[in-house]
Amino acid sequence: MATLCRPSIAVPEHVLTQEQTLELARTLHPDHPQLPLVLRLIENTGVRKRHIVQPIEETLDHPGFEHRNKLYEAEAKRRVPQVVYQALDNAGVGARDIDLIVYVSCTGFMMPSLTAWLINALGFRNDTRQLPIAQLGCAAGGAAINRAHDFCLAYPNSNVLIVACEFCSLCYQPVDVGVGSLLSNGLFGDAVAAAVVRGRGGTGVRLERNGSHLVPDTEDWISYAVKATGFHFLLDKRVPKTMQMLAPALRELATLHNWGEVSGFDFHIVHAGGPRILDDLCHYLGVAPDMYRYSRATLTERGNIASCVVFDALDRLFADGGATESARGVIAGFGPGITAEIALGRWTTTRRTVGGQGRRAEAGVA
Amino acid sequence: MATLCRPSIAVPEHVLTQEQTLELARTLHPDHPQLPLVLRLIENTGVRKRHIVQPIEETLDHPGFEHRNKLYEAEAKRRVPQVVYQALDNAGVGARDIDLIVYVSCTGFMMPSLTAWLINALGFRNDTRQLPIAQLGCAAGGAAINRAHDFCLAYPNSNVLIVACEFCSLCYQPVDVGVGSLLSNGLFGDAVAAAVVRGRGGTGVRLERNGSHLVPDTEDWISYAVKATGFHFLLDKRVPKTMQMLAPALRELATLHNWGEVSGFDFHIVHAGGPRILDDLCHYLGVAPDMYRYSRATLTERGNIASCVVFDALDRLFADGGATESARGVIAGFGPGITAEIALGRWTTTRRTVGGQGRRAEAGVA
Repeated sequence: MATLCRPSIAVPEHVLTQEQTLELARTLHPDHPQLPLVLRLIENTGVRKRHIVQPIEETLDHPGFEHRNKLYEAEAKRRVPQVVYQALDNAGVGARDIDLIVYVSCTGFMMPSLTAWLINALGFRNDTRQLPIAQLGCAAGGAAINRAHDFCLAYPNSNVLIVACEFCSLCYQPVDVGVGSLLSNGLFGDAVAAAVVRGRGGTGVRLERNGSHLVPDTEDWISYAVKATGFHFLLDKRVPKTMQMLAPALRELATLHNWGEVSGFDFHIVHAGGPRILDDLCHYLGVAPDMYRYSRATLTERGNIASCVVFDALDRLFADGGATESARGVIAGFGPGITAEIALGRWTTTRRTVGGQGRRAEAGVA
Repeated sequence: MATLCRPSIAVPEHVLTQEQTLELARTLHPDHPQLPLVLRLIENTGVRKRHIVQPIEETLDHPGFEHRNKLYEAEAKRRVPQVVYQALDNAGVGARDIDLIVYVSCTGFMMPSLTAWLINALGFRNDTRQLPIAQLGCAAGGAAINRAHDFCLAYPNSNVLIVACEFCSLCYQPVDVGVGSLLSNGLFGDAVAAAVVRGRGGTGVRLERNGSHLVPDTEDWISYAVKATGFHFLLDKRVPKTMQMLAPALRELATLHNWGEVSGFDFHIVHAGGPRILDDLCHYLGVAPDMYRYSRATLTERGNIASCVVFDALDRLFADGGATESARGVIAGFGPGITAEIALGRWTTTRRTVGGQGRRAEAGVA
């Protein structure tokens, strides 16, 4: 009975409004042949503001991949601990109760991953498993929840800490001036998030089933070109229409779980990659637009914060008082592949204190 | 009862002998103040030859991070399918019986990961879970086995495909001339490997318990500096002495599992990062040197092939006729962190045919 507890989110102090974004597009690309289209697309995102780790002047400058990656590491070490402490506190567990850390981040690259630093710096046990995932992009939030769920199924007394760290502004590439890139520059934001999945006890989403779906032959629709200047985000113009292909996967998982139509679920936490994704999910799944209010609020107030979106949206559900006991819901991340990572769960308020320190995930003789 | 079946390994056609390596060190760095030390260290590795994806002339050239990463992708797509097919065949399962693909590789970066391409190109189901891991380095082979084990504990009817793809020669950095770098240039080799972990049936190592251990405050002992020229491998001179710190973790896991002393195990498959690692494990664990013959053979004939080492060494155990029924053994990967990923298992020859096509990993109501 793995329960995804209340996430903790933090956004950086530097704010960029949509008005500033539009003005930047006009100033930086006055002669761009498709400027009117770009401005319209940015307006249509519905993103009112983003938060970024540096002031905008420094964000626009590209000091080189090496410098940026060092900045990524420094900012991660500066900003992640607080969300980790808060997530542990939200779940009522201590650092030494954690058996696995799943760290998802696609906007910087470190080896060893931040997991090693977290274990050393924040007092996790030295036998904590480390699962760093860098290549699932915006789907990684859903993937982290699902792999944490799997781990708790394998070791029912265990607890998993999920950390998502996305500094999308550190992947800004001044040389990329295609419509997809300019739109992305107006869409993505920075954030860090953490959440605990408890094998026993906890209040939140009791995870019941998870599934993954890859849309055939769409590998190049969302991808990174890896260059001397770092990761260059490539967004195909077909991506906004992806929900037509992914909605059936959500339906299918609900059917497998004998939960009937997705439209009948009580809560919906989905990756808000852009406004079209939410609109299309309403259309293809028959879900009322208001059901995506948490995801839409994340998009509006923070932009597409990649793997952090699902945690930010879920936090808004908690802040709204949660759901009634056993209410059914779905959490879904979408990202490169094109991949959907989907979880089905029920709201639970069952509380139980995690006993003892230094417990271990035990395989037993399998 | 998850069973790690016989791996499949392939090495590239271009061969570099130790004599050629020593000659290259002399030719490229004639005035290096520590050349005699470097030559002695390379000789002491015991690496007789390595296999690399390009002829040595092209390997020595650095065409830029972008070009190298494209080469990584092309070579991965060219070389991985055959080991995947062979690993499936070794395990007696088909592509559609696989529920999770764990892809480990630290020598190139792609988003989406190769997992998406594999699913599309090799006929895996579209609901196959993808777990790409890029940041565990040489420990990733052990980590892949352990996460596959966990998955089969969660879903006992499932099957996991592990793929390890390491083209270390594509991380050669001509500008790095420290002793650690020049030693690494004489140590690492290229290889691809695959193996299936079957939830039910199969011949090989029946996985019983796994554990991870991070040596405190050694994050910078093995690491990547990420630069415009790509990943720069940094090897601290203290690394060869790491086994003194990791041997207790192996002992502890054995004790937890009530298996007594590691020296009493019947087979030992460990990451052969260098000769000192194997010598020190003999010393600290009281294991007879001959017990590491498979790992030593991998190091001698192929060099340190990163996350592929444990699969190559395990394949040699299979080629040697395997072990007796229920013989006890350990598999351990070591890498950045510094992290050990350790698995305990028994040899099994239980065979059972995987039934039906398109089965799914089912969570059930947890």
